[in-house]
Amino acid sequence: MNAGPIHPAERMLSSLIAKAVQDFAMIRPGDRILIAASGGKDSTALAYDFSRRVRYSAIPFGIGALHVATEYSDPGTEENLRRLFAEWEVPLGVTRVSLHDRLKPGRKMNCYWCSTQRRTELINFALREGYNKIALGHHLDDIIETLFMNMTQKSELSTMMPVLAYRKYPITILRPLALLEERQIVQFAVAMGLDRVTCSCSHQDRSRRKKIRTGIEALTGGRGELKRNIFRSMGNVNSEYLPRVP
Amino acid sequence: MNAGPIHPAERMLSSLIAKAVQDFAMIRPGDRILIAASGGKDSTALAYDFSRRVRYSAIPFGIGALHVATEYSDPGTEENLRRLFAEWEVPLGVTRVSLHDRLKPGRKMNCYWCSTQRRTELINFALREGYNKIALGHHLDDIIETLFMNMTQKSELSTMMPVLAYRKYPITILRPLALLEERQIVQFAVAMGLDRVTCSCSHQDRSRRKKIRTGIEALTGGRGELKRNIFRSMGNVNSEYLPRVP
Repeated sequence: MNAGPIHPAERMLSSLIAKAVQDFAMIRPGDRILIAASGGKDSTALAYDFSRRVRYSAIPFGIGALHVATEYSDPGTEENLRRLFAEWEVPLGVTRVSLHDRLKPGRKMNCYWCSTQRRTELINFALREGYNKIALGHHLDDIIETLFMNMTQKSELSTMMPVLAYRKYPITILRPLALLEERQIVQFAVAMGLDRVTCSCSHQDRSRRKKIRTGIEALTGGRGELKRNIFRSMGNVNSEYLPRVP
Repeated sequence: MNAGPIHPAERMLSSLIAKAVQDFAMIRPGDRILIAASGGKDSTALAYDFSRRVRYSAIPFGIGALHVATEYSDPGTEENLRRLFAEWEVPLGVTRVSLHDRLKPGRKMNCYWCSTQRRTELINFALREGYNKIALGHHLDDIIETLFMNMTQKSELSTMMPVLAYRKYPITILRPLALLEERQIVQFAVAMGLDRVTCSCSHQDRSRRKKIRTGIEALTGGRGELKRNIFRSMGNVNSEYLPRVP
């Protein structure tokens, strides 16, 4: 490490996270923010940024991270996370859960169920360790995908919120990557050499999500500007021009 | 013509138009409805249906049609319309406008401008001839396309309404095909032999619309059920789960 120029990929990541933090008022003085560290590129990029942000922010706050390991986790993931987070001085907890043991008889493993289990672990850990916020690695493409999933599957205009306070717990969910395209996070991960140490779940069966993703690429021609227009449209509901089916 | 069984394509068309007429309260006693007859399959199918509907409806109303011919119109279109509408006993007016003469110097012809000119002709004719409603041939796919056009181009959640009252004129726009997929209208047109006599504008440069259409096909896998879910989602705005960008 030497005092060289700031890498363009780091500039992009930090400025778009800074914008989200400010636009959605994500950080208040004294916050204790738990980063959900899956080992994938998204949450690892988030942890990198927050390891700097916590040091340079004008607002004092604290961070930590939790990795929830399951039988689907790659064994190298935990090791990489321990090494990286030690370098970045982000306190890392690791919880091990067996998804199979928790699965009720006759039920099949799926992404929704697995993510619910991991969310429960995160909430319990946060409550126990005194965190009031949990930061997740969802990005702009995830948020638009969820919008279109909800439109086509649930007949509802809704998505994942950049900031969402739980009603049942004294905990708020943050999505600081809300303004970043996945493409931009990949650029960052490649530039920082993180693409070789991050790893996402190999169990994934996301055929519906894949169709949605293909559809969004066709709708937007992959142009970030049009994706940002879609994001902005969600806050610009012209209800006089939205038919209501009885 | 003999008293044979109802064709399945006619059953589908009439039942989905009946549902739209009822769901969106399109027809009131004494209405005089002007059908915008472009010569394409959509408005021709609409005119066929309304030629029967006006005869069998429990609510008394009247209909007529207007074809706005431009220099882009196929010469056979008007002839076909005259023959078909005479058979169906739908009074047909024809107005001729030169789009080129109206175009301001330096401006280029485009779909938006042409449709605005034709709309003006329809409104003027309706006002002069005592019509209080204008029925257009837009269908479910058009409405979803417009939603996605507005999201990606205007950053707005909005679309074409099944029923829309003008503020400036004593005229209401109807879209009785709002619940029909284009695929279903094509089926009807083929079954009725209308596919050989209908003709749409050949000038069209709809590259953006084509991309949107490809995107929607990918999002929905072409499944009508998912398209109808998207349509329903527009009336189901969960504003607590729609981020508002400052």
